[in-house]
Amino acid sequence: MHKLIFIALLLISADFSAQETIDKDYESLQVKALYDEVLSNGQCYKWLEYLCEYAGPRLSGSPAAAAAVEYTRQMLDTLGLDSVWLQPCVVPRWVRGEKEQARIVNSGVIGTQDLRVVALGNSIGTGPNGVTAEVIEVQSIEELQNMADADVQGKIVFYNRPMDVTLHSTFHAYGRAVDQRGGGPVEAAKKGAVAVIVRSMTTELDDIPHTGATQVSPDGYNIPSVAVSTNDAEILSRVMKQETVSVHIRTTCRMLAPVTSYSVIGQINGSERPDEIILVGGHLDAWDLGQGAHDDGAGCVQSMEVLRALKATGYTPRRTIRCVLFMNEENGLVGAKTYAAISNENDEFHIAAIESDAGGFIPRGFTCSAEKGLQEAYIESIASWWDVLDGNDLYLQPGGSGADINPLKSQGGILFGLRPDTQRYFDYHHTATDRIETVNARELKMGAAAMTSLVYMLDKYIERVH
Amino acid sequence: MHKLIFIALLLISADFSAQETIDKDYESLQVKALYDEVLSNGQCYKWLEYLCEYAGPRLSGSPAAAAAVEYTRQMLDTLGLDSVWLQPCVVPRWVRGEKEQARIVNSGVIGTQDLRVVALGNSIGTGPNGVTAEVIEVQSIEELQNMADADVQGKIVFYNRPMDVTLHSTFHAYGRAVDQRGGGPVEAAKKGAVAVIVRSMTTELDDIPHTGATQVSPDGYNIPSVAVSTNDAEILSRVMKQETVSVHIRTTCRMLAPVTSYSVIGQINGSERPDEIILVGGHLDAWDLGQGAHDDGAGCVQSMEVLRALKATGYTPRRTIRCVLFMNEENGLVGAKTYAAISNENDEFHIAAIESDAGGFIPRGFTCSAEKGLQEAYIESIASWWDVLDGNDLYLQPGGSGADINPLKSQGGILFGLRPDTQRYFDYHHTATDRIETVNARELKMGAAAMTSLVYMLDKYIERVH
Repeated sequence: MHKLIFIALLLISADFSAQETIDKDYESLQVKALYDEVLSNGQCYKWLEYLCEYAGPRLSGSPAAAAAVEYTRQMLDTLGLDSVWLQPCVVPRWVRGEKEQARIVNSGVIGTQDLRVVALGNSIGTGPNGVTAEVIEVQSIEELQNMADADVQGKIVFYNRPMDVTLHSTFHAYGRAVDQRGGGPVEAAKKGAVAVIVRSMTTELDDIPHTGATQVSPDGYNIPSVAVSTNDAEILSRVMKQETVSVHIRTTCRMLAPVTSYSVIGQINGSERPDEIILVGGHLDAWDLGQGAHDDGAGCVQSMEVLRALKATGYTPRRTIRCVLFMNEENGLVGAKTYAAISNENDEFHIAAIESDAGGFIPRGFTCSAEKGLQEAYIESIASWWDVLDGNDLYLQPGGSGADINPLKSQGGILFGLRPDTQRYFDYHHTATDRIETVNARELKMGAAAMTSLVYMLDKYIERVH
Repeated sequence: MHKLIFIALLLISADFSAQETIDKDYESLQVKALYDEVLSNGQCYKWLEYLCEYAGPRLSGSPAAAAAVEYTRQMLDTLGLDSVWLQPCVVPRWVRGEKEQARIVNSGVIGTQDLRVVALGNSIGTGPNGVTAEVIEVQSIEELQNMADADVQGKIVFYNRPMDVTLHSTFHAYGRAVDQRGGGPVEAAKKGAVAVIVRSMTTELDDIPHTGATQVSPDGYNIPSVAVSTNDAEILSRVMKQETVSVHIRTTCRMLAPVTSYSVIGQINGSERPDEIILVGGHLDAWDLGQGAHDDGAGCVQSMEVLRALKATGYTPRRTIRCVLFMNEENGLVGAKTYAAISNENDEFHIAAIESDAGGFIPRGFTCSAEKGLQEAYIESIASWWDVLDGNDLYLQPGGSGADINPLKSQGGILFGLRPDTQRYFDYHHTATDRIETVNARELKMGAAAMTSLVYMLDKYIERVH
């Protein structure tokens, strides 16, 4: 219902801006031409195939990340842009080490039982001898905090609250469960726990553990932490209802010295207002278990496609259109922070920025946000032409944008997040199965076409609000 | 834009029916309860796994089709329905025979080149010696008909008009290309051709040939016909631009004697108006190359799920809710025709029918149709409560329903087609890759939940129009 009400408001607004000089029939044809170009000649899927199959798992600071930087730089170089460059940033270098081990060691019910686990990103390892301890299960950080310290000390804490499958948006379900992975280990360490097992963040019951970043405590409250597959979480929980269970965990992950890496940038200079930047971007780093096809190779190649399609159709943008492939979104956001700091130093103004970091699935629309007080004014401006894009079945809703572009909000522009359908995302998110085979070429192109069209309309019709 | 305008009309209609006694807040909660049941406890994906992996490729009349009939009957029997039965129908029994062969035999440009082909369903075979003839390429039946008979006689006709990738709905693109497969072979036979090669019906360029039914001429204008993969269609066309090309085709497919098979039916009797039937259905038969996971195992298990979810939530329907798994949609529609004939003989009235036969992808909405003059009245009736379903992001548009339920239109009820997102469907349609791995469990359940909710709202609020 939110969607409908919002669109209804837009249509009403459109009635009041009839005096504006927007020829919607003409612009619908221009947008169709951009869609046709992407659907007929789009290169994004081929780029993604290469990125996935040849660059490989490109966690920040890894050799594969260096390959991804060089590959995308070379591809941007083929597009006839005005400039392509690398922006250095110093990224953390976390390594997973040997394949993780975990098993129930003392069950009278099911005997010894291996658990499928992966270390959480940024986690410390157990060392080569592993840790073995009794497990206590909790459903939330709050439940843990309400326990007596004595009941936690020396134990392994097992966070087992599932993602809520009845929420239609899997991102909403993720948002309500992921605190267990992000903040759960530090909170368990503060209570004296020796290790943490977190139920994997997925709506499915399967055998695939999902990694992802956990917080690093500056005060030293860091303990070895792993995610367990949902099937094994169910087994562990079931056995624990019948008896006291001890688990052995062995991980050799560790944080190495930081490494210089790069965000990759290309741009078309604006012909009328080169000082106003419209950014499209995604993040180039990815977790090390799979290929980072959906998270976020998809967003990178879609952002590159926007520039390719604008050039291929001969469009001369009024503003500077810049593609940024941010480094290190997954475990530090260093690329994003570096980019924003340099942009602010240079007095740049991003009038708009669009991030694609929710998978290469069929696009449903965009969410948008801006600094307090500015958002309504921007939306009013967009309302006069949004129906041109809505003809391509895209909604516009207030909401978040993306972790990499969020630091640009203080410049006073409007930030957008591409919102693909969410049903499949957490089947693959941060796992070994986030591979090219799970990306559909047409869905990926539809997302790129949606982004290209939004960039085009923003370039022509959005105005600086303050 | 169609979607928005249509919904706007519905909202306006809703304003004029404020006197109706529909408690939308209450009904939204009931619909949420149905969604929750399907998303939390839905069995449809597990049923589909079994149907795909154990029953296997279930073309009409095959042993696998018999297994599918028995499996789905047994599953319906577990649901506590008021009745479950098999409805006999005599179906054509077409068999593919040995693996098809096709190759360019005389090219000076690329030498001998194998072409990946599959016989079209219902096609006659070449016999064990195959046919070898010069190939002529056309883009349409019309282009062929405008040629002199002498230029076609003794040749192989190659229909090579691609699906239009710039159309956002792949079903629209299919609709504009599939005449080549359906009617192309008979038209070529009438001009004296000896065989037909049709470009596969897909938006992708790949190596996978797509089968599908072709017409059988009662006048004997039947020639061996195959579909070629799009990559090989491109190769063949490219070579033909440089030289005269001959192709050898060998197929041993043939039509055997008809076989008795069954549509599978289960129902919950209506508590108030048992004589008014709301049907949900899909077709149980599938092409023999893959597992028929999307086409149309998905629609079958979703229809079964509707009955399961209604029972599980304790809902007592006013009308009779009937699930029908039709046999022989793909190459004859015998199950659908038999069902409608028996229904008419028994003076049944299907006040509504919903078919799911467009893949198990994320649902976008429903299209609906009824006999001339009735449709507007039904839509007006639905308009007063459609926003209850639109809260689940479902549109309603006038449009087709499904091949199996279409014969019921003459009873005067309203027919619906579930409309999932179309982007991926023609990657798999009628191929060896239409397998369980390509179906996402949550997307499948979302479709089943949408159907269940529509059945619930129809049962409570739709009224007989005449």
